[in-house]
Amino acid sequence: MKTYKLALIPGDGIGVDVTASAMQVVQAAASSLGFGINPQHFDWSCAHYLETGTMMPENGIETLRSFDAILLGAVGWPETVPDSVSLHGLLLPIRKAFTQYANIRPHRLLPGVEGPLKAEGFDILCIRENTEGEYSGAGGRVHQGTVNEVATETAIFTRTGVERILRFAFDQARLRRGHVTSVTKSNAQKYSMVFWDEITRLVAQDYPDVTVDMMHIDAMAARMVMAPESLDVVVASNLFGDILTDLGAAIQGGLGFAASANICPDRSSPSMFEPVHGSAPDIAGKGIANPIATIWSAAMMLDHLGEAEAAAAIMSAVEAATAKGIGTRPGRQTTDEITTAILAALEE
Amino acid sequence: MKTYKLALIPGDGIGVDVTASAMQVVQAAASSLGFGINPQHFDWSCAHYLETGTMMPENGIETLRSFDAILLGAVGWPETVPDSVSLHGLLLPIRKAFTQYANIRPHRLLPGVEGPLKAEGFDILCIRENTEGEYSGAGGRVHQGTVNEVATETAIFTRTGVERILRFAFDQARLRRGHVTSVTKSNAQKYSMVFWDEITRLVAQDYPDVTVDMMHIDAMAARMVMAPESLDVVVASNLFGDILTDLGAAIQGGLGFAASANICPDRSSPSMFEPVHGSAPDIAGKGIANPIATIWSAAMMLDHLGEAEAAAAIMSAVEAATAKGIGTRPGRQTTDEITTAILAALEE
Ligand SMILES: CC(C)[C@H](C(=O)O)[C@@H](O)C(=O)O
Ligand SMILES: CC(C)[C@H](C(=O)O)[C@@H](O)C(=O)O
Repeated sequence: MKTYKLALIPGDGIGVDVTASAMQVVQAAASSLGFGINPQHFDWSCAHYLETGTMMPENGIETLRSFDAILLGAVGWPETVPDSVSLHGLLLPIRKAFTQYANIRPHRLLPGVEGPLKAEGFDILCIRENTEGEYSGAGGRVHQGTVNEVATETAIFTRTGVERILRFAFDQARLRRGHVTSVTKSNAQKYSMVFWDEITRLVAQDYPDVTVDMMHIDAMAARMVMAPESLDVVVASNLFGDILTDLGAAIQGGLGFAASANICPDRSSPSMFEPVHGSAPDIAGKGIANPIATIWSAAMMLDHLGEAEAAAAIMSAVEAATAKGIGTRPGRQTTDEITTAILAALEE
Repeated sequence: MKTYKLALIPGDGIGVDVTASAMQVVQAAASSLGFGINPQHFDWSCAHYLETGTMMPENGIETLRSFDAILLGAVGWPETVPDSVSLHGLLLPIRKAFTQYANIRPHRLLPGVEGPLKAEGFDILCIRENTEGEYSGAGGRVHQGTVNEVATETAIFTRTGVERILRFAFDQARLRRGHVTSVTKSNAQKYSMVFWDEITRLVAQDYPDVTVDMMHIDAMAARMVMAPESLDVVVASNLFGDILTDLGAAIQGGLGFAASANICPDRSSPSMFEPVHGSAPDIAGKGIANPIATIWSAAMMLDHLGEAEAAAAIMSAVEAATAKGIGTRPGRQTTDEITTAILAALEE
């Protein structure tokens, strides 16, 4: 039996609940379709930090390297550990060390879910650059604490980095409706974003079958709300993708439904799958977190591993459940009740 | 009779139509309330650039300095002049040279206007930093054209720049519902945005009567769509404010309704008033542009000049018109018809 080695990092807060739920669904799909998932559990988290002084052990990245995939719940517990420590100590290093340069986030309304927009018929795949750009971590502060203080933050874009994410987006468009929207702000950021636009034009020449439009991030944010059905694949820098995918989460009914995959496309390192939401301290430990975003992320993981049938079965089960009002409204059912309903639908 | 000197820069495309409309409304309000507006017309635009090689004459800024205010239509005509030339040759230098550091943009639904959200009862005032930050224009490219190319774009924030925009926002909150939301991305941009957060905490101490929350731009974009009624004053950097105000324009029904004021708060230089929309080449010259965003901007101008009664009268007239379905849908009425209806409402 084909068996995949899975690194499971529940992390903080509701990360624990939602990964437990997703693992039940993944195991059920695996056993009914005849493959194995062999999870190894890592307790890396803010609690781990408070005990040991690090978010993950020094050889954490090396440890993860031998796995086929990583499923992550949520990282962060700002009350005890600043985000700048927790995120830069666990989530962000994994994305960078494993060259998971493509952060993929699908945005559509599951059946039965009410979104905040009047528009309903949209199906967007956001592709966010995940390793450089505005989150490069380069910058500094001078004259600190004085009236003359200046702080800088430098966005760094490489040709390799920009070209590979654009090619990835164009490849995805070929599997969908054949349209790419590339998002920049080249009318105000004339170095980085003009560079991105130039590479977009070059890459587009290799994909004559894909149509492309280029938009500024401000106009794009408006378009996502006013005409989401006009979008297919959207590709953007680390920051712009971050913003657009939270907006995407909003229009699909909230973070409870927003899945994501951090993909290393050449498969030289494991990819990581995680919900877009965070650890949600306000509802942590109450057993009411919505596991759907994580289950959807786990389906993307199975798809990436080559188990497309299992992935599709899970998504059908999720949709059968939401169509009946399961998991569609915060607090109506518990995490367990939602999981049970999805497991039942999976059996059918 | 008190008379104000107004610099009128229609600019490109529909900028010409919408400023002509707004001037009719402004003059009608002025004459009925007993003050004068003395406009001087400047044809600075992309057409001017094609004729003379510059967007405005070399002494353009000096010429504008003696005016009480500037009313601007739209700048840009990408088919003939790149945005990087037109915007950096006219719009952006005015904002910076006159220290118009506070870009104010109100977002609410006018009566009769259908927005894309189910939510209707919101009233947000976005305050965008307008002179520095991510649009500082600092950056560069090395190894240009080669596979090793790297492009950088440096956001530059000064203590003066950040503190003054935050104080401005807190002052505005005192005139409204007493709440400020400050938007950063301090979990991923640890120099510039941590700096902004620190100054927010300091400034907040001087305003014990104002409540404040601090959010990341990604969560904020989602909140603007999911719970816009929870927001009062929103303050953000140049880029984040740019994005949020286009999103604000979207939720208020579109760019046809989005007004803005570029304010120099100490009044050492003239302030500039302009719609958020651009020159709209697709509908330019057709006489169907919606002038409401510009009329609203002109009302903000009169308010800034101390003519609050005239400003309120114009906004009442606009609302009376939209409540009857005038100007609420693209293309239903011409620019002239909308203007005539608002003038009629103003007379009543
Ligand atoms: C937690 C944060 C650093 C992270 C990001 O901005 O990448 C999150 O917002 C996300 O979208 O995955
Ligand atoms: C035209 C462009 C440079 C401008 C900006 O980004 O400032 C516009 O989008 C705006 O919002 O006023």
